[in-house]
Amino acid sequence: MTAISVSGAGAVCPTPTIESERVLLGHGSGGKLSAALLRDHILPWFTSPALRELGDAAVVPISGAELALSTDAFVVSPLEFPGGDIGVLAVHGTLNDLAMVGADPRYITVGFVIEEGLPLATLDRIVASMARSAERAGVAIVAGDTKVVERGKADGLFITTTGIGTFDGTFRAAPTGARDGDVVLVSGPVGAHGMTIMSVREGLGFETELISDTAALHPLVRQLRQAVADDVHVMRDPTRGGVASALNEIAAASRVGIELDEQAIPVDPPVFAACEVLGLDPLYVANEGIFLAIVPASVVDSALAALRAHPLGTRSRKIGRVTGANAGTVWVRTAIGGTRVVDMLPGDQLPRIC
Amino acid sequence: MTAISVSGAGAVCPTPTIESERVLLGHGSGGKLSAALLRDHILPWFTSPALRELGDAAVVPISGAELALSTDAFVVSPLEFPGGDIGVLAVHGTLNDLAMVGADPRYITVGFVIEEGLPLATLDRIVASMARSAERAGVAIVAGDTKVVERGKADGLFITTTGIGTFDGTFRAAPTGARDGDVVLVSGPVGAHGMTIMSVREGLGFETELISDTAALHPLVRQLRQAVADDVHVMRDPTRGGVASALNEIAAASRVGIELDEQAIPVDPPVFAACEVLGLDPLYVANEGIFLAIVPASVVDSALAALRAHPLGTRSRKIGRVTGANAGTVWVRTAIGGTRVVDMLPGDQLPRIC
Repeated sequence: MTAISVSGAGAVCPTPTIESERVLLGHGSGGKLSAALLRDHILPWFTSPALRELGDAAVVPISGAELALSTDAFVVSPLEFPGGDIGVLAVHGTLNDLAMVGADPRYITVGFVIEEGLPLATLDRIVASMARSAERAGVAIVAGDTKVVERGKADGLFITTTGIGTFDGTFRAAPTGARDGDVVLVSGPVGAHGMTIMSVREGLGFETELISDTAALHPLVRQLRQAVADDVHVMRDPTRGGVASALNEIAAASRVGIELDEQAIPVDPPVFAACEVLGLDPLYVANEGIFLAIVPASVVDSALAALRAHPLGTRSRKIGRVTGANAGTVWVRTAIGGTRVVDMLPGDQLPRIC
Repeated sequence: MTAISVSGAGAVCPTPTIESERVLLGHGSGGKLSAALLRDHILPWFTSPALRELGDAAVVPISGAELALSTDAFVVSPLEFPGGDIGVLAVHGTLNDLAMVGADPRYITVGFVIEEGLPLATLDRIVASMARSAERAGVAIVAGDTKVVERGKADGLFITTTGIGTFDGTFRAAPTGARDGDVVLVSGPVGAHGMTIMSVREGLGFETELISDTAALHPLVRQLRQAVADDVHVMRDPTRGGVASALNEIAAASRVGIELDEQAIPVDPPVFAACEVLGLDPLYVANEGIFLAIVPASVVDSALAALRAHPLGTRSRKIGRVTGANAGTVWVRTAIGGTRVVDMLPGDQLPRIC
């Protein structure tokens, strides 16, 4: 900290800090507070190397092979929204976490925490759409548990899904793989899921135009990997905290800088409009049906061609590059030629979005 | 239904039913309402054979081997209680479900749903005790997720754990395995966990005497299996719904009758006293550190000797027998020589106990 000369008692500008003896909503944001909660209150105790890698899924040895394991708790409000519901989100989110480490999803387990009073018709719709999503994705829901808590002790329904995946070769993707000269691709426009939830919740009137992008990405990942013979360095689905937080995590894990071209980042007009109304940056808004791929420059053309040939990736774009300079930093080159740093947020733009 | 002659309109005695368009607290009881929720609102959609077996854990093929998968949501109130906390309970509960199908627990994943405002010191204690429990049990916590919801939208902390286990041979236990002539063993006294929770919650003043039995049972199961060369027909940990509900499920799945000797069922005096005060039957109270083993009569002596030689099983008892008659029914032979049927309860004696 640079010393600042000031006159008058108490006028020294304090370093901004957020400290608390209690869990704050921002601890669930996917931003800096989430990272602090993990660093200070979870990782001191949970010391497994597989967990400490903090990939989207853990890779563990079992019965002479390797498995990918991923778990996610879903607490989205409202439970149903344009394009999906909490059940679809839980299935897709877990499948996608497995796909991001290079695994083929095989099995899902489901834990329901239900608030007393939830309409059974709502539960039926959500369970049915989970089953449909899993079936379409070719995975089986093989175990489950249901708990009911008193009215006012939950928010309708929370779902925790765990996914088990297998590997068909030696390819494993991890957030540590980005290298100087690599290129950053995104498989579709950003911000649709988060702004859909926000729009429904706040009654913004964008409901007819906004639709969650929730989707199972493993077929798209498979197509990319085949096209470039597994020459993919990092994959990440930018959910909570959005593209900005995901790239910050990669920049930190890989000890590289990441430069984005603002004009290249695809944002659909209704998402852009909703972000403007609310003063939000789409780079921090959650996505549930796109992923970031960091690939060597030599395979960019074939990678983009493969992504665009799949219905989920028709709007894939090159959005930036990896540099050896400014390790741990993400910045945007703006339309007018300036640059601004895209840091992780301390807390949340939008809570309870997944 | 026997026709009943009555005079006067509307005087036909209706079959008692509990119907609702909303989820009731009793749907989480582990009793008849839970079974109905599963049958009518989950199983119509989730059609995996592994899930439909409704064992404590699913057994699925993967990478040329078989895995056991189990998931459990924990919503106990209060979060901390004599003998443990929600974290220990989550780890042990998941390990025990794996052990009940004959698997060796290997990995655990954890999903936290935290209510805004939870003291970080409470979270620290619970996460630390989860880590300790897992380490003692020889399993690794390899993946996790944390979500935070607004104050009033959860009850402090919910934890969903998923366990992955492996098999070292062909032995698999399932609730369908009980046979006429088999003997029912219990590995320790019943009702301690549920009555501990209830006592703390209701301020009954038994706190100093009551302590949850939460424990990881797989070493005890291992000792039993070795002693009888895997000649064990059914294993079940009687959690929600207690011994009565667990045995009813086994009686239904195996199409047998089960007769219990009331005087043989071990109940500690403080548990008995607390049950009397509250008018509860210890057979329906949750346990978290004992299991039921149904074995052929020929191995009873060696089974009991093996169980009693382990610190967790010193008070193992023979409590009943399996019959070919009265399939699907569980009954108790009372101290005075009568019998009473021990049905599943519709709802809950004690909600939110695990």
